[in-house]
Formats: sequence, structure tokens, C-alpha cells
Amino acid sequence: MAAKAREVKLIESCAAVLGWDQETMMPEGGVELRSAQLSHLARLSHQAFTSTEMGDLIAAAKSECAALPEEHPDRVDVREIERDWNKATKLPEALVSELAELSSKAMHAWAVARKASDFSQFKPWLERTVQLNRQKAECLGWEKGGEPWDALSDHYEPGLNAADVQRVFEPLRTRLQGLLDRLKGAPRKPSNAFNEHALAIADQERFVRFAAKRIGFDFSRGRLDRSTHPFCGGSHCNDVRMTTRYMETCVLDALGSTMHECGHGMYEQGLDATRIGLPMGEAAGLSVHESQSRLWENQVGRSRPFWTWAQTQLPAFFGDACDGFGLQDLVDGANVVEPGFIRVEADEGTYNMHVMIRFQLERAMIKGDLKVADLPGVWNGLYKDYLGLTVPDDRRGCLQDVHWSMGAIGYFPTYTLGTLLAAQLFEKARTDLPGLEEGFARGDFAPLLTWLRTNVHAHGRRYRLDGLCRKVTGQPLSADPLMRHLEGKLLPLYGLS
Amino acid sequence: MAAKAREVKLIESCAAVLGWDQETMMPEGGVELRSAQLSHLARLSHQAFTSTEMGDLIAAAKSECAALPEEHPDRVDVREIERDWNKATKLPEALVSELAELSSKAMHAWAVARKASDFSQFKPWLERTVQLNRQKAECLGWEKGGEPWDALSDHYEPGLNAADVQRVFEPLRTRLQGLLDRLKGAPRKPSNAFNEHALAIADQERFVRFAAKRIGFDFSRGRLDRSTHPFCGGSHCNDVRMTTRYMETCVLDALGSTMHECGHGMYEQGLDATRIGLPMGEAAGLSVHESQSRLWENQVGRSRPFWTWAQTQLPAFFGDACDGFGLQDLVDGANVVEPGFIRVEADEGTYNMHVMIRFQLERAMIKGDLKVADLPGVWNGLYKDYLGLTVPDDRRGCLQDVHWSMGAIGYFPTYTLGTLLAAQLFEKARTDLPGLEEGFARGDFAPLLTWLRTNVHAHGRRYRLDGLCRKVTGQPLSADPLMRHLEGKLLPLYGLS
Repeated sequence: MAAKAREVKLIESCAAVLGWDQETMMPEGGVELRSAQLSHLARLSHQAFTSTEMGDLIAAAKSECAALPEEHPDRVDVREIERDWNKATKLPEALVSELAELSSKAMHAWAVARKASDFSQFKPWLERTVQLNRQKAECLGWEKGGEPWDALSDHYEPGLNAADVQRVFEPLRTRLQGLLDRLKGAPRKPSNAFNEHALAIADQERFVRFAAKRIGFDFSRGRLDRSTHPFCGGSHCNDVRMTTRYMETCVLDALGSTMHECGHGMYEQGLDATRIGLPMGEAAGLSVHESQSRLWENQVGRSRPFWTWAQTQLPAFFGDACDGFGLQDLVDGANVVEPGFIRVEADEGTYNMHVMIRFQLERAMIKGDLKVADLPGVWNGLYKDYLGLTVPDDRRGCLQDVHWSMGAIGYFPTYTLGTLLAAQLFEKARTDLPGLEEGFARGDFAPLLTWLRTNVHAHGRRYRLDGLCRKVTGQPLSADPLMRHLEGKLLPLYGLS
Repeated sequence: MAAKAREVKLIESCAAVLGWDQETMMPEGGVELRSAQLSHLARLSHQAFTSTEMGDLIAAAKSECAALPEEHPDRVDVREIERDWNKATKLPEALVSELAELSSKAMHAWAVARKASDFSQFKPWLERTVQLNRQKAECLGWEKGGEPWDALSDHYEPGLNAADVQRVFEPLRTRLQGLLDRLKGAPRKPSNAFNEHALAIADQERFVRFAAKRIGFDFSRGRLDRSTHPFCGGSHCNDVRMTTRYMETCVLDALGSTMHECGHGMYEQGLDATRIGLPMGEAAGLSVHESQSRLWENQVGRSRPFWTWAQTQLPAFFGDACDGFGLQDLVDGANVVEPGFIRVEADEGTYNMHVMIRFQLERAMIKGDLKVADLPGVWNGLYKDYLGLTVPDDRRGCLQDVHWSMGAIGYFPTYTLGTLLAAQLFEKARTDLPGLEEGFARGDFAPLLTWLRTNVHAHGRRYRLDGLCRKVTGQPLSADPLMRHLEGKLLPLYGLS
């Protein structure tokens, strides 16, 4: 079974390189044939995986490892491959290829509509996407008492359902709102000056590559390139491809993006190389993935200890161009909280509000409670409600994210669940590793990475989100650590404690 | 048939991107899985192509187009696909994927051995390569009276056999030797000063990219990157990937490499985009391919008219760094003849000697007349014999070329056959296009490219090497045009006429 499963993943891993290439290297002329290449590879891997031969191999492997402990790697592999196979075989090939075709066309329509800031151009595509995803959900099925969104979300976060998400998000929103209200009337405002300070892009690039290497990204098993939207891809743990982007103002954007993608990249690099193409060598799910990126971006990259070290490195990359900025300016710059329209530019304090809005909307669209035609109005209403903002146009409103055009419904909540897990993991790491942050101040990040390797990366898909959280921290996933992290950092910065 | 054939080529086109990526972008860690990826794709495309379904489709298409003229595109497609199918069905799938995997691994071993200048590290890989290629030849078979090398060469140049190559090479060697002997005792030596003139690599890169664009390479349908060994790959006419390399001394190396690869690249870009994945949209063979690269590198790039134009462009890229060099210095620099160890650095006068040496060696290895273990010694002996040189080490000896590590045996002679064709085509173009070279002196290269598009590129695989040569020039392929070109240029430059 393992050999056959690896073969399927080998095809997917080829597609992963082509996907990365498309975003970073491919000349314009390659677009048309690239979608044909990717859809053909998708068809080949789907065919290979859903074969009855694969089903028989799984059944045989299952009985072979029945006597092994539940958490034994071989047994985990069989459990997860069976899970994937059960799902894949429920989807008719026609639907799979229709979804793939729709996604590539809808992404194009989305890009055009977004440029024109005109939702009406994207509306028919989103309607069809919602319709086909609803069909997909019907094929996959969901637990009794659940709803169609659960079936879709399960692809990104195994076992996640809307009711559970709702139970986490509701109190989180209230607590975040309380924090944001306090910051609004705060006696101190962190200085935004470093965020407005232009630095040469070539210098920024050398600096963020240095930082990526220092925190632990292994460049002999990965790359860092540029793309419009930063992402982390690549085909396996020994060939991880991340991207970032650079803006003259300011280096914090490139650094934050890079540390975020490094978190993803180091998770991939930390997976078991002897299990490439098998579940024990794969990431647990998107929430755990996001916990790794958020942890390095936020708990590390926005912290005073990190900047205590980073400040001493600046002259080597920027000469005297940062001389006017003290440690407090750098920490301030990394932690300014200011509600804005764009999720990917949001600060740590408001970010999760953006995610909750999207969850509420996609859940209602899939349920049938929200008509696609009404999306812009409801979107804008929620931005007023959650963040007090009046959305000026669709480009900065409901057309800003690529996800729905790709057919990725059920994906957004993993951003916030991962953010919660990051805070919870970091609290535990800090307890387990005395002197951890004093180490950051000296540029020593290895203990944290080693801890993550052991406690998270090494498990592959052994545990689900909540199971991993309990296993590592002894507690169920909770918003408390994130709130402690935010309040502990932001209140003093805003002169509130 | 066409749809199915295109599907097979779609898989091959994915492999082509992965192959390019391996040489230019892939981190070291990716090597092992990349071999597995390429080998699996090779297996998948081989399976798809050699199916009996494909055979039936070919048979049906053949009878459908039996009434069409022989040179009709549809009939050419069927003829060539049948030819490929007949060959492919002779190769067992296991051998195909083993060869693909071996090639990817052996290339890595070669790179390591070459760096260490240690043939012994590469020896087992080459032994296995020769062994598997010998097996491949046995499967494919060869014409009566021929030899195993013919079976392998046919892949690169349809219908080529060793005896024919020998018949072309023997007199060519004698005539080239005569020319080299005359140059040795010549009264004038062209100045080598420009070849020893260091120029900043960043400036060189801007300059050669400019030149590539000017001679006609379309960057919206292709890329130019760096690699140790320059090559031209990519997956189809709208996504062509070339590479070059840069040395401080001198820009002529990067420029020559780039114009050479541009010749390949513009051939690919000139193929019929409506026939991507079909023989009429594919290159005729490697000799014709090489004729395009050699023509732009030599007939254009080393000519006085080219440098008349290029000289005026230098200040925009190099400031005053080339001010000391007059037109004669540039033409001299591009045409110094000096026997050396390295084929890819060889001048126009000695280049073909390198090729003949390799042909002799690979022919003997495949025949079984030369043991791989004896390669370095025999290689060095031939360099003494052909070029009067004592090879100092394996790096500058039998480890210099990537070809054998890739499993490309039967490939080398196409370099010289292409060089002959380049000279013959250029003589014809000069007759057809009055004022052609005066145009070069003004930086106008479009007429030549248009002529090549019409007379060579548009034909796809319609004609074989000799057929195309007769069709375009009215004569069989001959060494006369090359000798006229070399003697006409080099003798005056060396004060001999």
C-alpha cells in the first residue's frame, strides 16, 4: 500500500513544483498549457488513487497492522490513507474535473473583477463555485446534526465543523473587541515611524534571507523567491519553496512575510524525510500549519527579545540607514494596531476579525442562507460591525481574497485556529525551555525549533488539531493563551498597564 | 490520435519543466526525489504512449489521411507518431524508468565528480549508463550492417548511423587539420586582448539579455537563467527556458553561449503553436536544432557586421570600460583560434575536433571496444592526437560534458552536423536576402529570423536532416560551406590571404 500511495503523491509533488513555477518563474506565454498540465496531473493522480487496487491494498494493510498500537506510524499511515481514499472515491471524476476547470477559470475572472473592483463580473463564477461545492459537500456527506460546510472544511482541517468553530469564535470576538476598544482610547500610541521608513529592497532581501537562515530555514533543502502573494509550496521536506515580497516601506512587511512563510517552511522541513509521500511525513492540517507560521511571525518576530537581537544586525545590511531608530521604535513598529480593510495587511490585534467575517459569510453561502448576489452588502455590513470601517469598494472588500475563486471554502477558520494554537504552543515552550526568550535576544532560535520539531513536526498526521494541542499542552485548544499574549504585549505598549 | 498523442506530450512537458528546474532552481536536497519524479513521469508517458489504444488510433488515423499529400501536416504527424510508437513499444517500461532515474542520479554524481576532478567517482555511474544504453540499443535494433550506436543516435537524429558519420568526419578532420596547421604558422595573430578584459558580471548580464532580445528571443514566451552548463529546455514553444553562464573574462563567453542558446530557443519559439505536442510542432532533430544555435553563434555572432553594430552598444552597458577596444579587436577576440581542452569554450576552428573525439569514444564504449575504466587514458590520447594537447586532469578531460551522465549517447555528432548545416543554410540565406549582413551592421536581424522561420522552423518534423538541407539549399549536406566560411574568415584574419 505504501509504495502505491507514495506513487500517487509523487505525481502530486510534480504538480507542486509546477504550481510554484507558475507563480515565480513561468513566462506569461506558459499560462495556457500550464493549466492543462496541472489538470492532467490531477486527473492522473486521482485515477491512480481511487483505483480498486488501492482499496484492496488499504484493506490488506489494515489487517496487517491491526495488532500495532494505535499511534504506531504504520497504523497512522493506514488510517489516514484509508480516510483520504474514502473521501476521494466519493467524488465522481466528472465533478472533480469540473471543479478543477471551474477553479482555473474563476480565478482568472476573479483577478479581472478585482482589478476592475467590480463584483458583478465575479458573481456568476462565485455562484457556480458555491453550487458545485454544495454538490461536493453532498457527495462527501457530514455528521448528523452538522451542515454542508463541515464536509468542505474537513479537507483543510480534518474533523472540523462549523458549530465548533462558532463556539470558539464567538467569545474570541467579544474579548478581541474589548481589547481593541481599550487600545482605541489608550494614553500612548506606538510609533509608526519605522513602518514609514524606506530601505533599499536589495538590502532588505539580504537581511530577510539572513534572518530566515538564522531562525532555522535550511537553504540546502529549500528556496526563498519573490511573488505577488507570499506562499510556501514545494514538493516535499527536502525541497521547500517559499516566497516573499518587498516594499520600499517597510522592511517589516518583507520580514513578517518571510518569518511567516519560514514557519510553514520549517514545518515542512521538519517532517520525517523517510516518510515522504505518506501521512506520517505530512503536515497535520492547515490549522497546525498556520500555528507554525504565526508562531514565528508573531510570538517570535514581533517580540522585544527578537528585536533586541535584530537591531544589532541592521547595520550590517542597511549601513547607517536605520541609525535613527531605537529598540522601542522597532518594537512599536512591529506592533501598531490599526483596523484596516485588507486581511493580509492586518496587525495581530485585528487579524482574526477578518477571518471571522469570512467564516460567517462562507458558512451562510454554502448553507443557502446568503445569496451570492447579496455578498458585497453583507460583507460591508460586517466590516462596519466588526471593525467600524466603511468599505470603499469591492477591491478592498469582498474581492480581496483569492480563496473562494479557487473553490477553497472551509479554509479561512484555520487561520485563526492556527493563531490560537501558536499562542498555546508558545506558552508551553516557554515553560519547557527556561531562558527561551533571553536566547532570542542573543539570536539563538535553535531551542524553539528543536522543541517544535519534537512536539509538532515529528508527529506528521498522527494527531488532529485538538488532539495535538492536548498532547503537547495538556489542555484543549483555547483562546486564553492568545488573549494573554496580546494583552500582555499590547496593553503596556499602549500605556495601559 | 492527435488528442491522445498530445496528452502524452503533456506529461513529457511537465518533466521538461522539472528537468529545467533541477539545473537552475532546485535546492540540493531535492535531488533524490526529483529522480523519482522524473522516472515516474517517464513511466506514465511511456505507458500512455505504448498502449494498444494508441496503436489502434494510429492505424485509424493512418488510413484516414492516406489520400493526403505526403507532406501534408496531418500525414506528417501520423508518420512521425507511428515512428515514435514503433520505437517506444520496443522498450520495456522497466528499462525506460530505470534509465530516467539513473540519468537524474548520474547527473548529480557527475557534477560532484567533476568538481572533485575525480573520474573514479563517476565511473560506476557511467558503466551503468553504458550498460543500460547497450540494452536499450538491443531492444530498438539497428539496420543490417550497422552497429548498436545507430540505434541510440536515431533518437537524436532520425536515421543517423555511425558509418555515415564516419564518412563525413574523416575528410572533415583532414581539412580542418590542414587549416589549423596553416594558422599555426601564420604571419598575423588576431589580438586576444578583448578575451582577457574583465567586465562586471552584472553589466554582462544586462548586455547579453539585450542582445538576446535584439536578435529575436521573445522573453514573454521564455526565460534566460544561469546554470553551470548552458542549455535550452522548457516545455513548449510558448515557454522556452534557456540558460547561460558568466565569467569575469570575458563577455564573449556569455555572449556566445547566449546567442547559441538563443538559436535553439528561437527555433523552439518558431514552431507552430497550434501543433504543440504534435510532430509538426516539434523540432526536426538535434542536428537541425544545432544548425540554428551555431548559425546565430558563429555566422552572426562572430561576424564583422555583427560587431560593427555591437560595438556601438557597449557603452550603454559597460560605460567606458571597453573604450580601449576598436572594431578589429572585437572581431579578433571573437575569432582567435587556439586549441584548448574544453569543448564548450572552443573556437570555431577547433570545435569540431572535440566532437569527433567524443563520437569515436562513445561509439567504442557502446560497441564494447572501450572499457569505461579506460576512458580517461584514451580520451587524453585522442586530445594529444587531434589537438596536440596534454590533458591535465579529468575535470578538463573526460568529465567536462554532461551528456553521457544524462544517458545521451549518440548525441555528440549532431553538433558537427548542425555546424555544417548552419554554414550551408547561411550561404543560402545570404543569396536569398541581399543586404543581409549590412542589416546586421545596423542591428537588424529580423530578416534572417523570418527566413529561418519560413524555411526551417515552420516545417516541424516534416523533413529529416538531409531532406531539409536539400529542400532549402538544393544540395545534400556538405562540409564545403563550412570550410568556405572558416577559410574565408580566418585566413585573412591570420594574414594568409
